Amino acid sequence: MTISYTSDVATSSGFGCFWKVLWRWKGSIYKLVWKDLFAFLLSYFGISAAYRFALDEPSKKYFEQVVIYVSKSYTKLIPLSFVLGFYVSIIMTRWWNQVSGVPWPDTVSLYVNSCMTNNKSPRARMFRRTIVRYLNLAFVISMSKVSPRVKRRFPTLDHIIEAGLLNDHEKSLLGGIDKKSQYSNWFVPIVWCAGVAKQAQREGMFIGEQSYLALLSRITDFRGACGNILNYDWISVPLVYTQVVTFAVYAYFLADLFGNQWIEAGDIDMYFPIFPCLQFLFYMGWLKVAEVLINPFGDDDEDFELNWVIDRNIQIAYLVADDLHESHPEVSKDVHWI
Amino acid sequence: MTISYTSDVATSSGFGCFWKVLWRWKGSIYKLVWKDLFAFLLSYFGISAAYRFALDEPSKKYFEQVVIYVSKSYTKLIPLSFVLGFYVSIIMTRWWNQVSGVPWPDTVSLYVNSCMTNNKSPRARMFRRTIVRYLNLAFVISMSKVSPRVKRRFPTLDHIIEAGLLNDHEKSLLGGIDKKSQYSNWFVPIVWCAGVAKQAQREGMFIGEQSYLALLSRITDFRGACGNILNYDWISVPLVYTQVVTFAVYAYFLADLFGNQWIEAGDIDMYFPIFPCLQFLFYMGWLKVAEVLINPFGDDDEDFELNWVIDRNIQIAYLVADDLHESHPEVSKDVHWI
Amino acid sequence: MTISYTSDVATSSGFGCFWKVLWRWKGSIYKLVWKDLFAFLLSYFGISAAYRFALDEPSKKYFEQVVIYVSKSYTKLIPLSFVLGFYVSIIMTRWWNQVSGVPWPDTVSLYVNSCMTNNKSPRARMFRRTIVRYLNLAFVISMSKVSPRVKRRFPTLDHIIEAGLLNDHEKSLLGGIDKKSQYSNWFVPIVWCAGVAKQAQREGMFIGEQSYLALLSRITDFRGACGNILNYDWISVPLVYTQVVTFAVYAYFLADLFGNQWIEAGDIDMYFPIFPCLQFLFYMGWLKVAEVLINPFGDDDEDFELNWVIDRNIQIAYLVADDLHESHPEVSKDVHWI
Amino acid sequence: MTISYTSDVATSSGFGCFWKVLWRWKGSIYKLVWKDLFAFLLSYFGISAAYRFALDEPSKKYFEQVVIYVSKSYTKLIPLSFVLGFYVSIIMTRWWNQVSGVPWPDTVSLYVNSCMTNNKSPRARMFRRTIVRYLNLAFVISMSKVSPRVKRRFPTLDHIIEAGLLNDHEKSLLGGIDKKSQYSNWFVPIVWCAGVAKQAQREGMFIGEQSYLALLSRITDFRGACGNILNYDWISVPLVYTQVVTFAVYAYFLADLFGNQWIEAGDIDMYFPIFPCLQFLFYMGWLKVAEVLINPFGDDDEDFELNWVIDRNIQIAYLVADDLHESHPEVSKDVHWI
Amino acid sequence: MTISYTSDVATSSGFGCFWKVLWRWKGSIYKLVWKDLFAFLLSYFGISAAYRFALDEPSKKYFEQVVIYVSKSYTKLIPLSFVLGFYVSIIMTRWWNQVSGVPWPDTVSLYVNSCMTNNKSPRARMFRRTIVRYLNLAFVISMSKVSPRVKRRFPTLDHIIEAGLLNDHEKSLLGGIDKKSQYSNWFVPIVWCAGVAKQAQREGMFIGEQSYLALLSRITDFRGACGNILNYDWISVPLVYTQVVTFAVYAYFLADLFGNQWIEAGDIDMYFPIFPCLQFLFYMGWLKVAEVLINPFGDDDEDFELNWVIDRNIQIAYLVADDLHESHPEVSKDVHWI
Repeated sequence: MTISYTSDVATSSGFGCFWKVLWRWKGSIYKLVWKDLFAFLLSYFGISAAYRFALDEPSKKYFEQVVIYVSKSYTKLIPLSFVLGFYVSIIMTRWWNQVSGVPWPDTVSLYVNSCMTNNKSPRARMFRRTIVRYLNLAFVISMSKVSPRVKRRFPTLDHIIEAGLLNDHEKSLLGGIDKKSQYSNWFVPIVWCAGVAKQAQREGMFIGEQSYLALLSRITDFRGACGNILNYDWISVPLVYTQVVTFAVYAYFLADLFGNQWIEAGDIDMYFPIFPCLQFLFYMGWLKVAEVLINPFGDDDEDFELNWVIDRNIQIAYLVADDLHESHPEVSKDVHWI
Repeated sequence: MTISYTSDVATSSGFGCFWKVLWRWKGSIYKLVWKDLFAFLLSYFGISAAYRFALDEPSKKYFEQVVIYVSKSYTKLIPLSFVLGFYVSIIMTRWWNQVSGVPWPDTVSLYVNSCMTNNKSPRARMFRRTIVRYLNLAFVISMSKVSPRVKRRFPTLDHIIEAGLLNDHEKSLLGGIDKKSQYSNWFVPIVWCAGVAKQAQREGMFIGEQSYLALLSRITDFRGACGNILNYDWISVPLVYTQVVTFAVYAYFLADLFGNQWIEAGDIDMYFPIFPCLQFLFYMGWLKVAEVLINPFGDDDEDFELNWVIDRNIQIAYLVADDLHESHPEVSKDVHWI
Repeated sequence: MTISYTSDVATSSGFGCFWKVLWRWKGSIYKLVWKDLFAFLLSYFGISAAYRFALDEPSKKYFEQVVIYVSKSYTKLIPLSFVLGFYVSIIMTRWWNQVSGVPWPDTVSLYVNSCMTNNKSPRARMFRRTIVRYLNLAFVISMSKVSPRVKRRFPTLDHIIEAGLLNDHEKSLLGGIDKKSQYSNWFVPIVWCAGVAKQAQREGMFIGEQSYLALLSRITDFRGACGNILNYDWISVPLVYTQVVTFAVYAYFLADLFGNQWIEAGDIDMYFPIFPCLQFLFYMGWLKVAEVLINPFGDDDEDFELNWVIDRNIQIAYLVADDLHESHPEVSKDVHWI
Repeated sequence: MTISYTSDVATSSGFGCFWKVLWRWKGSIYKLVWKDLFAFLLSYFGISAAYRFALDEPSKKYFEQVVIYVSKSYTKLIPLSFVLGFYVSIIMTRWWNQVSGVPWPDTVSLYVNSCMTNNKSPRARMFRRTIVRYLNLAFVISMSKVSPRVKRRFPTLDHIIEAGLLNDHEKSLLGGIDKKSQYSNWFVPIVWCAGVAKQAQREGMFIGEQSYLALLSRITDFRGACGNILNYDWISVPLVYTQVVTFAVYAYFLADLFGNQWIEAGDIDMYFPIFPCLQFLFYMGWLKVAEVLINPFGDDDEDFELNWVIDRNIQIAYLVADDLHESHPEVSKDVHWI
Repeated sequence: MTISYTSDVATSSGFGCFWKVLWRWKGSIYKLVWKDLFAFLLSYFGISAAYRFALDEPSKKYFEQVVIYVSKSYTKLIPLSFVLGFYVSIIMTRWWNQVSGVPWPDTVSLYVNSCMTNNKSPRARMFRRTIVRYLNLAFVISMSKVSPRVKRRFPTLDHIIEAGLLNDHEKSLLGGIDKKSQYSNWFVPIVWCAGVAKQAQREGMFIGEQSYLALLSRITDFRGACGNILNYDWISVPLVYTQVVTFAVYAYFLADLFGNQWIEAGDIDMYFPIFPCLQFLFYMGWLKVAEVLINPFGDDDEDFELNWVIDRNIQIAYLVADDLHESHPEVSKDVHWI
């Protein structure tokens, strides 16, 4: 589930609001970075111990020269902040487009409710319910391609049947189409959905041609949004960019391990690498922002919980398209009526 | 309420216009930062006093070496300006999308006015008023989920009844739906709104099918805008990013407390940390920009006053949809008529 | 009026084209900065004179130490270029959205022309002219809220009557509505505009329902654009951001006054602060970009001349909606006809 | 014409692809910068010669001190890369919006083709051809306002008559309108275009009202795109911003002329200013990017060739709207038919 | 084919996920940079050997002075990270717009399916299949202009005939049009496509005029998307910008070859240029990101495989428009039915 802390930061009076979110653990920088930091410190003290206890005098001298040389060079080496700034910007833009681009069936359900005529017959109800069911079916099938969590929940079509979104006849039809076409057929339920709407149109269940087309257009928007999510999954940020950034951060801290060693020839010796640790938390944390966001439907704390969305969508779509169909309160005079 | 100073900066003649806004207090950097600055100075002078009066000579020496070491390291430590620049950019983009994405019922009201036929019967009036009432109702319910101010004004549905946007029958219907669905049902009034419009369409109160669909489309836009605001609230900027930035600023000024101490071994001793104070005002002020904007419907001076918007919307929606319905001036020849 | 220099920069052959715009005065950096620069130099030479002629030897020594200390600290103090870069980016985006978002009545006029039927009766003419008149009226009323220049031209509704956009009856209606609603009622003429169109629809002056709705949609777009401009005016860039930036620039040059003093202990003494002056021109000029653009409808040389736009709109709207109504040339064979 | 090198960079195997484009001359950095670089070197060697041969010993000493002072100050003087980065970003965004916003008559032609009924009479043909002719006429008139090249080709309306886009009667009508309105009347052919379409609608040449409105909407889009191009031309990037950037670059290299002189007191003396030259090529080249792109319809190598577009549009518009009207191949079974 | 690694980065638990992608070879930084790095090292050791073994003592001294001078100057020379950051941002935005802007025929196919009436006659089938065939034909012809891979697969129209998208009669028609117009006629199949739809409309195969126009609008969108891809190909990022960036990187590493030589006068001599190599991998890798993305339809590992898309589109378009035409499952009660 996404981590929401908006209510914590409603006001910045007092000492502001951001220090409050510093103490959170779930989805936090500490939870994400502590293992890396531990490994970093282990390596640091390993090298430090080797230098202090294992090396003989001339090796020590040489080591100290290496430390001095590295400490002069490595900060100029790579402008970490720059490359991270640009990279994380790109990742965040993609992330937001993905999470805000997840389609909701609400609009289609509302159009099913509003464009189909006042027909309380069971057949009309079936049409309404089938349209939104196919919509949810397409959603589940497409999302199981991008989200490991959804995949784990619905590993096969049989699990979708159990969830009530598919029946056996439909499953066999899907199987038949899969045999004909070797490409991903996640959109077939959308085509069915439009086909069912057309059948309803033929049976005179729409207010008119316009209403039918209005619904069709909303269904197409839904399909487009699903396709968009699949596109984002299919076309990643180019591998080479991710590698350049990761490489930069790792190379930086590799150099850091040597360049920030306390040496006996220095002015003071504080044993613990305070500033490298702060830097590590900062830069590695910044990189973790990218790691967490690059796959917004993955398994991280911050990731978007599509299974919750699926449950919600099934319930709400039936509610809007069926239960609330022509069951609004009777119009009456309001209290401001004069 | 948002702080508007546009009229102060209408012209940059003379010495420009921005120095004028430096003297404002409400919503200002000084109001936001002074408590933090006070705490910073307190710590600074505490450490300074300890160094000058409490430490013995060898500790002083060691302290001075620490100061020198820190002062050489901390500025290179973390590129504050960079990370703040990127982070505040992201927050501002979100902020603007949120405040400019708040939906206004004006367009729907105009369409109610323009698409429904010239029918002055009380029933027609009821339809028009009910449609915009439900719109405002959905707005209030959804906004109370994102804004603590609106929540304080309308803690329960009863308070909304008092405001005249809901009646008892509708409240019980809402309660019934809440029982059926465990998910947020803020959009139910929108479905009612569309349902009432459909009822009106059946009773022949629209110019035609097209007009009905045009209104429906505007209602859907309104729903989408509300949902968008809720999305922004639900999906915060990832916690880890906010933590990284906050951590960076705090770590920087923690190091600053030591690295900028005046030491007796230095060339001059000015006692007061002028430049650290300027930096503190600047960087902490920049962070406060983010703190203020991250929740635009919160309790800060700068925050958007949704309660005012609600009052305005109720009045204007009735005005446009009902009072101004077919009450435009009679067309006549204008003064440029030839 | 905006300063257009596009024709000066049509080609970058020779020594390029940008040096040509360096010599312009109107709307130039020199015109905007010279007063500030003058004040800066005055202060600089004041301090310089005090140092050279008024201080005794120990004070001089102390002053020199201050100069050395400041000169070492202030450049690292605040990354001016960074904060200005980000801030000016934001301001420019807003500026362009505002000036390119100013609505033009041309499209509505074209739709009035094209969607209303071939009816040359005076009443049809009245309808067409009234629709665009109300549009222009709404434009003037809303723009007078954001632009001091328009406000000066139309301080009261009476001035709008003089301009022929309003008549006395309509003014009294507006007054009545203002009494009912305490909120800004700039959009009322838009509602009238739509109402008049609806009246015309009832009288059969449109090709059909679709044509009427197409016009209505364009009128709504116009309203939305006006509302957008008002939003930009109402929701300024957060005060605290503007303060942070202004504060940074001023603090920088305050430090500059001391840190760049020529001291006798230095290697050379050139009396005049050449580089600080260049910096001042540059950074202060960059800040002026923001000052000029933050209110694009203000009184600066660069600002958008809405009064000219209003005059143009009145004339063009009548021209398109009325004079050119069904007065196109007769179709004929063109020269490429085979 | 724009310089296309996409095919040169199809693959980055081997040593990559960008070194290939380093050798191009047309539209290249070398062609744009060599004159400036020549002037820079001339000044450099002039100063160098004066220092080496003309100055006496004390002047030399003073000059050397100036060189040392300048060389320490000027790089910190102005963050060229920053301001150029932001400025060129803005210019490139505008440039792309302009070149990708040039309207093409293809869509309108397709709608003329598809929305008007199967009527092969000469009158129907006249209607179709006249609609797209007026479209192209509006395009030529508006583009001649932004592009000096188009202006040179069509300095007067008579030249447009020669090109076959206008006839004498229409020219006199345009003249009459110009007398009535002192504002730019480039859009009048668009109004005629819509008027002709309406005449055709009255004569029953459209499939229905919807088809007519669909065409009208596409014509309006075309008008909007032309207006947008004019807007970009009218509202330049604020003069003061361009001045700030130009000023910064020139001031930098003026300081460079002194600060990078080889002095006899230095460690080595390489006579030729290698690094300043590289810097000059780089920074001045970056500025030239802005100079070239600021007016995308100007006279530079890179600029968009609107005359070619005009020729193409005239031919293609007639082709689509007239020649291809209902002349598609007869439908038949395809090879995959089963 | 694009390199997808999203599933590798689903969670950042443990040591995060980015180190996993460091070991990939296909599309990786190592594969792209190793040749350049090899050349760089060869030059480095060549110079190093010359210095160590070939030069006499005074030359060595001079060389060392050059090394010292260059090493002090070159890092300040050009802000590589800055210019690369901005440039790669621009390239990535273009890249994403291109790859996400590739049109898919799915929507048009769905509209063909949903807007044309329930007519199972072979002629209706022919219409449906011909419409989507022409769409795919236009796609292939336009993409062969931007992608060398598609061009290699379909060097002539005859190869398209073999693929079943064209027949001989249509080929001769295309040839005839090419003779009339010297401009690119890739869009002619789109005009045919619309023409065929119109023929179907005349034969009463659409639900109504609206349905026909809805399909026409989707066909136009498809045409627009193809045109957009062609535009991106035609209007490259300005040559001078690419040259400036490439020049900067190459100049930097040329200076690096000298400025980072180990000299005997230095403190230590590690023979191998570790840090320059890291920098080379980093900066050259960043530049390679741009090289790979500048032509997203080229021959790189990362490039978008349009041939796969073409195959998929042909199959899916027929599937949706024909096979699935009115073959949805019969509506029935779902499991949640109450």
